Amino acid sequence: MRKLHHLALSPFCRKVRLVLAEKKLEVELIDEPVWEKRLDFIRFSPSGKVPLLKEGASVFTESTPICEYLDESHPIPKLIPADKKLRFETRRVTSWFDDKFYNEVTKNLLNERVYKKIFKLGQPDSGAIKEGLKKIKFHFDYLEWLLEKRNWVAGEKMSLADFSAAGHISALDYVGDIDWQSKPIIKEWYAKIKSRPAFRNAGLLTDLVPGFVPAGHYSDLDF
Amino acid sequence: MRKLHHLALSPFCRKVRLVLAEKKLEVELIDEPVWEKRLDFIRFSPSGKVPLLKEGASVFTESTPICEYLDESHPIPKLIPADKKLRFETRRVTSWFDDKFYNEVTKNLLNERVYKKIFKLGQPDSGAIKEGLKKIKFHFDYLEWLLEKRNWVAGEKMSLADFSAAGHISALDYVGDIDWQSKPIIKEWYAKIKSRPAFRNAGLLTDLVPGFVPAGHYSDLDF
Repeated sequence: MRKLHHLALSPFCRKVRLVLAEKKLEVELIDEPVWEKRLDFIRFSPSGKVPLLKEGASVFTESTPICEYLDESHPIPKLIPADKKLRFETRRVTSWFDDKFYNEVTKNLLNERVYKKIFKLGQPDSGAIKEGLKKIKFHFDYLEWLLEKRNWVAGEKMSLADFSAAGHISALDYVGDIDWQSKPIIKEWYAKIKSRPAFRNAGLLTDLVPGFVPAGHYSDLDF
Repeated sequence: MRKLHHLALSPFCRKVRLVLAEKKLEVELIDEPVWEKRLDFIRFSPSGKVPLLKEGASVFTESTPICEYLDESHPIPKLIPADKKLRFETRRVTSWFDDKFYNEVTKNLLNERVYKKIFKLGQPDSGAIKEGLKKIKFHFDYLEWLLEKRNWVAGEKMSLADFSAAGHISALDYVGDIDWQSKPIIKEWYAKIKSRPAFRNAGLLTDLVPGFVPAGHYSDLDF
């Protein structure tokens, strides 16, 4: 059986979990306390990061390369489209969320509030949280602008880029950092993703992080 | 004519320049002072980052998606191999350098010493430089371990992952941060890359950053 070492609120793990679920690939989820640097984990993941996917004797790390591999190995449904320009746009938006959105928003909000406590790294940095709350506005304006032109974040069909975006946004929604009322078009997109069987089957709505109660509406399909 | 907005020492721009040169694709390089946020740049690159590639009316950002697009559009020579597992490994190592190596090494050394001065962001942070010099040892041990098993960083053939690694390492070499003597196997790999026509044709050896004289051996093929 396929195994995924993960952390419940990691947006990168959530992206991989959504891809696996959308493709109906079975996987056993293993909570990986990365800060403990368990030998059985570190020897397979030299970067010390999750997600880490094991398939038989094969080991895979780095979330987007894992997703590209899964999409090439299990092409139904295709999450990176066939057309070259659409492939580019799918990868660009995926990279936008996993690099720029992560560094400017997710890291400042989620890592400060949740992981600092779990990793026992001291008090949250209020400057970082302020910066994250400022930057999420810019990113939501950009996401709104994308969704005004398209059905999904990278084009007319759902793609890996939607799962990348949903990985970050769902994790921030768990801790109550998303203002759904100000951006109805983003809310509508997220409602479409959230109500997919894959979202539930990936276990995202039932994740629980000890010490952090999810926002009241987190698992609600009518949020 | 294709145009690439870039910064001379940006490892991400260097990766794209190497891919273009290896595929013999002509490009006009445009120095882009990103910190000036020129309107004609920002409206094409909402992230405010280089590289930004223009081909006719098409605009491309995010370095790895650009390289994937170029490899699919101009497949000779192939820089992402055909075999699924080799494709995964190429993408994994590319991502390792552009994420982990960048955040732990390049950012701490190059950004502190060069970009802080250019961007007028104050004095270099000596703690960050110390951390970068410590982490480069771990990364060079890992790169040595990879190269003991393989001809190139991601397999038996040269690939995008070599250009990603060379983008970072060549930029650090410019500022004299690479200790070539302690790792002969890495030196041998870099000598192979450096002596390729693409390396010279990409203009990497003649880059000059005002205020920063390159290390004496920087453009020397016998370094």
